[in-house]
Amino acid sequence: MSEFEYINWVRQRIPAHSRVLIGPGDDAASVEWSSGKPCLITTDMLLQGSCFLLEQTDPRLIGRKALAVNLSDIAAMAGRPVAAVVSVALPRVGGRKLAEQLYEGLSRIAGEFDTAIVGGDTNSWDGPLAINVTVIGEPTGSGPVRRSGAEPGDWILATGEFGGSILGKHLTFTPRVREAQRLHSLVRIKAMIDVSDGLSADLHHLCEESGCGAILEESMIPISEAARQMREGKSALEHALSDGEDFELLFAASPSEGRWLLRDQPLAEWGVSVHRLGEFVPEGFRLRTSDGVVRDIEPRGYVHEFDGGSS
Amino acid sequence: MSEFEYINWVRQRIPAHSRVLIGPGDDAASVEWSSGKPCLITTDMLLQGSCFLLEQTDPRLIGRKALAVNLSDIAAMAGRPVAAVVSVALPRVGGRKLAEQLYEGLSRIAGEFDTAIVGGDTNSWDGPLAINVTVIGEPTGSGPVRRSGAEPGDWILATGEFGGSILGKHLTFTPRVREAQRLHSLVRIKAMIDVSDGLSADLHHLCEESGCGAILEESMIPISEAARQMREGKSALEHALSDGEDFELLFAASPSEGRWLLRDQPLAEWGVSVHRLGEFVPEGFRLRTSDGVVRDIEPRGYVHEFDGGSS
Repeated sequence: MSEFEYINWVRQRIPAHSRVLIGPGDDAASVEWSSGKPCLITTDMLLQGSCFLLEQTDPRLIGRKALAVNLSDIAAMAGRPVAAVVSVALPRVGGRKLAEQLYEGLSRIAGEFDTAIVGGDTNSWDGPLAINVTVIGEPTGSGPVRRSGAEPGDWILATGEFGGSILGKHLTFTPRVREAQRLHSLVRIKAMIDVSDGLSADLHHLCEESGCGAILEESMIPISEAARQMREGKSALEHALSDGEDFELLFAASPSEGRWLLRDQPLAEWGVSVHRLGEFVPEGFRLRTSDGVVRDIEPRGYVHEFDGGSS
Repeated sequence: MSEFEYINWVRQRIPAHSRVLIGPGDDAASVEWSSGKPCLITTDMLLQGSCFLLEQTDPRLIGRKALAVNLSDIAAMAGRPVAAVVSVALPRVGGRKLAEQLYEGLSRIAGEFDTAIVGGDTNSWDGPLAINVTVIGEPTGSGPVRRSGAEPGDWILATGEFGGSILGKHLTFTPRVREAQRLHSLVRIKAMIDVSDGLSADLHHLCEESGCGAILEESMIPISEAARQMREGKSALEHALSDGEDFELLFAASPSEGRWLLRDQPLAEWGVSVHRLGEFVPEGFRLRTSDGVVRDIEPRGYVHEFDGGSS
């Protein structure tokens, strides 16, 4: 059973609750708040060995990433982060120094995104380092942007470039909080996700939630320099499609609004380009190669597996 | 450096933020929400080996406890829990079964306390089981009850009985959510905490935050049957004072309102008694023994230590 199967298992069992506006399965949940804006909430746990290698990574970057991945989820709803709580499980030896360095990285990016660190839970144990951050935030403009809402004919759009984030960007990426809010204020973003599992995997999530298909254009995929530097028996295109943790925004808009975004490039002042990657279609999940051949693609990406092999 | 020293280290470094009404150091934080009630938020991480023994514990009780400790923190603010997010780090072998059992325990108590599970993060790794829950909630009545606010002359009051929770109550306790709300609606609770570190340790937290001292009366301490059953070279009284995880409410009220609570016992319908344990005083931290001798006591309790021995 994979992470996604488990999420689906949970979604089927969660009873309806009158205050839950958006429940599990989107980038963040949305909870009705008395006579105010709803409360967006998202949580992420980073684990030594699977999410980062402690021996090879500055702990400040781990602390930074632990908050940044949550800011990216709030961005994917076009939300504004407000506050965060942080839990850590520290190894017994060297825990104090580590705790201070984690906090240093966390607090710096919290300041950059005007997010208050309001509490937490600090423990030490005989296990590896684990750090969990929960962020609450508010919707902006016309409200949270969901993963559902893309329709056939909409353009597939994205910020930035894809692939090879393991070479550095997975630790140093900028959560697209400002970018998402500006896009949300300028055009009707019909569906959005942040790319954490990988471009094709996360595009597939958008399709599943929206009940449609997609066709990517090979010639349009913005392939990062890092993807071209990767040497693991895969092409740069394959890295761009399947590598995780780019933390760019992937979204749907109408062709006319998409055309306007490509021409106007409203995120240019932050050094961020908007690209068109293809089009949503009624069904199927395909890539049109540069020589015009259309072939099915797998929504590959990073998937956490339980019980290796049982799924 | 202990957990508390680290929390203080963090508190000194956290910049002021205009929307933070209550920051780190209380049972939950409180964040201003646009034109609505503030948002209470609290988080807790449970770790295999230090918070529970996986081989000896029904995973449903671990899932239950992971949410219940957070409900207890919301109760300590006299708040109403609204929603929760859950992160788990699962061992690779047996992870699926474990995930389902954890969820079963979590969702049952979530239902009992009308708390929606709205999201989470599920991972597997080579480490032990770790589970983190964050709960958001709303204040009730006149607003959140803080740890500060007790004054000399106020009575030290508590729900339930203390000590020996390791024999079972630490997994099966009822978070005092309803009880706290009723007390808050009936009298002016001047300061409150839930007893997780131990009666004397948590009373000491109330004193520190309130800037006063306390004197406990040995003859008044409600000692649980479990504390009397403990056989670890300590007296039942010592267990009641120092054992952690009773998850009862410890609070301050004026003598007149305290007297009324003792006589009226407004929580009796739920089988919960209100007890007087002593009195807040200007300074010192003492116990009056049954033979009338007054002696200093240590605010002992369970304290997470980093770097064993460095504090």
